[in-house]
Amino acid sequence: MSIAAQPLTSDELEARLRQIGAERYHHLHRFHRRLHTGQCTYEEVQAWALNRYYYQAMIPIKDATILAKIPDPEDRRQWRKRIEDHDGLREGDGGIERWLKLTDSLGFPRDYVISTHGILPGTRFAVEAYTEFCRSRSLLQAVASSLTELFSPTIISERVAGMLAHYDFVNKETLAYFSQRPVQAKRDSDFALDYVKKHAATRAEQNSVIAALEFKTSVLWAQLDALWSAYVDGAIPPGAWVPGTVTARVQAA
Amino acid sequence: MSIAAQPLTSDELEARLRQIGAERYHHLHRFHRRLHTGQCTYEEVQAWALNRYYYQAMIPIKDATILAKIPDPEDRRQWRKRIEDHDGLREGDGGIERWLKLTDSLGFPRDYVISTHGILPGTRFAVEAYTEFCRSRSLLQAVASSLTELFSPTIISERVAGMLAHYDFVNKETLAYFSQRPVQAKRDSDFALDYVKKHAATRAEQNSVIAALEFKTSVLWAQLDALWSAYVDGAIPPGAWVPGTVTARVQAA
Repeated sequence: MSIAAQPLTSDELEARLRQIGAERYHHLHRFHRRLHTGQCTYEEVQAWALNRYYYQAMIPIKDATILAKIPDPEDRRQWRKRIEDHDGLREGDGGIERWLKLTDSLGFPRDYVISTHGILPGTRFAVEAYTEFCRSRSLLQAVASSLTELFSPTIISERVAGMLAHYDFVNKETLAYFSQRPVQAKRDSDFALDYVKKHAATRAEQNSVIAALEFKTSVLWAQLDALWSAYVDGAIPPGAWVPGTVTARVQAA
Repeated sequence: MSIAAQPLTSDELEARLRQIGAERYHHLHRFHRRLHTGQCTYEEVQAWALNRYYYQAMIPIKDATILAKIPDPEDRRQWRKRIEDHDGLREGDGGIERWLKLTDSLGFPRDYVISTHGILPGTRFAVEAYTEFCRSRSLLQAVASSLTELFSPTIISERVAGMLAHYDFVNKETLAYFSQRPVQAKRDSDFALDYVKKHAATRAEQNSVIAALEFKTSVLWAQLDALWSAYVDGAIPPGAWVPGTVTARVQAA
C-alpha cells in the first residue's frame, strides 16, 4: 500500500475497495466452491451452519458497538436498521431467527447452537477479532470493515441456487435467511460506501479504510479455513462438534 | 464440566488441570508430530517460526496486562520475571531476541518478521484472543490461562532433540530460545499453579480456572491448525507469506 500523502479521488478509493473484494473476498475460498457446487457432505453443511451461527449472532453486538460511536442521529437511524434486521422487530423475526431455522432443519437442538459450545476456536477467534476491531478502532474503520457486504449479493445468489440444486436437505424455507439479505446488504453497503467516501479525506484515512476492509476479508476467510481443516480435512480440534453427535436427522419438509 | 457447588480439593483441581494438558495440549497436534519427526519441509519450518514470532512478541504485552491486575507487590515481582525473560535485561538479550535469531537463521529479514505483515490471520486472531482474554477476564482466569507452561518442558525437549536430529538447517545456537525455556517455564508454572490452587476457592472459581486453561489450549491448537492448512495443505490465505519470497537462504553456521 502506498504511503504517498496525495489522497485518492472518491472513485479511485471505491475502485481500490472493489479490487479487495475481487482478490480477497471469501467467494474465492475453496470451501465455498465446494459448498455451492454440491460437493459438501451433509455433515460439512451442518458444520458450516453451526459455526456461522456465531458470526450471525455477533453481528448485532458488533453493530451496537458501532452505533455507540456514531455522533449523528440520522446516521444512527440508518445503522440501527442493521440491528433490526438481525434481531427482528418481534419474537420469531429477524436474521438470527432465520439462521436458527436453518440449524433446526439440519437437526441441531437450538440450545446447543445458541450455547456455541461446539464451534471451532478458529471461528470464535475470528469473530471476536471482528467485534474487537469495531470496538477499538475509529468509527471510519469500523464502518469500512462492514464493506464486505458490497460483494455479498453475488455470493448469496450463487449459494442459494447452488444449494437448492444440489442438496435435498435444504429448501427455500430453510434458506430463508438468504432471501432477505441481498436487499438489506445493498442498502447497508450503499450507506457505508457513501460514508467512507465522504469521511476518508486524507490519504492516511483512506489507507485505514483499505486496511479495515482487508482485515474483514481475512475474518471471513479464516472462518472457512478453520471449517475446511476440521470437517473436510477431518482434523477436528479438541472440544469442537463431532459429526454424528448432538443432532437428529430431520425429515425434509 | 460439573456445576455442582462442592469445591474440588486442591489435588483434584490440579489433577483436572493436568488432564486438560494430557487431552488438549498442542503436543498432540499433527503439525508438532510432523515438526518433531523431521517430516516438515524447510518452508514449513520457516512458516512455523515466522508465525510463532507473533505469539512470542505478544507474551510480554499479555504479561504486562496481567501485571497491571495484580494487587500484591511480591506477586508482581514474581510475574515481572516473565517480562524480563522475554524482553531481556539488556539489548540483545531475552526470548524475543532469541526467537529472532531463529528467524534470522531461516533467512527472514528482521523488519519483515517484526512487522508481522506475513503472518496468518488465524495466528493473529488466536494470539489477540489470548491477550484480550487476559485483559477482560479476572486475574484468576488470566493467571490460569498461563498454565499450559505446566506441559511445555516435555514438548520442548522433544522438539529440540527432534529438530537437531532431523534438520540440517537448525543447530543448538539457532534453537537457543528453547534452551532457556524449561527452567523459566517450571518456575512460572509452579507459581501460577500455586496461585490458582490458593485463590480458586469456590467451585465456580475452579470452573473458571478450568475453562481458562481449556481456552488457552485452543489458542495454541488453532495456531497450528492455521499453519497446517496454509503450508502443509497449501491453502495460503490472501496476503500471508508465500514460501520462496522475502527470504534468503542462510549458510548453515
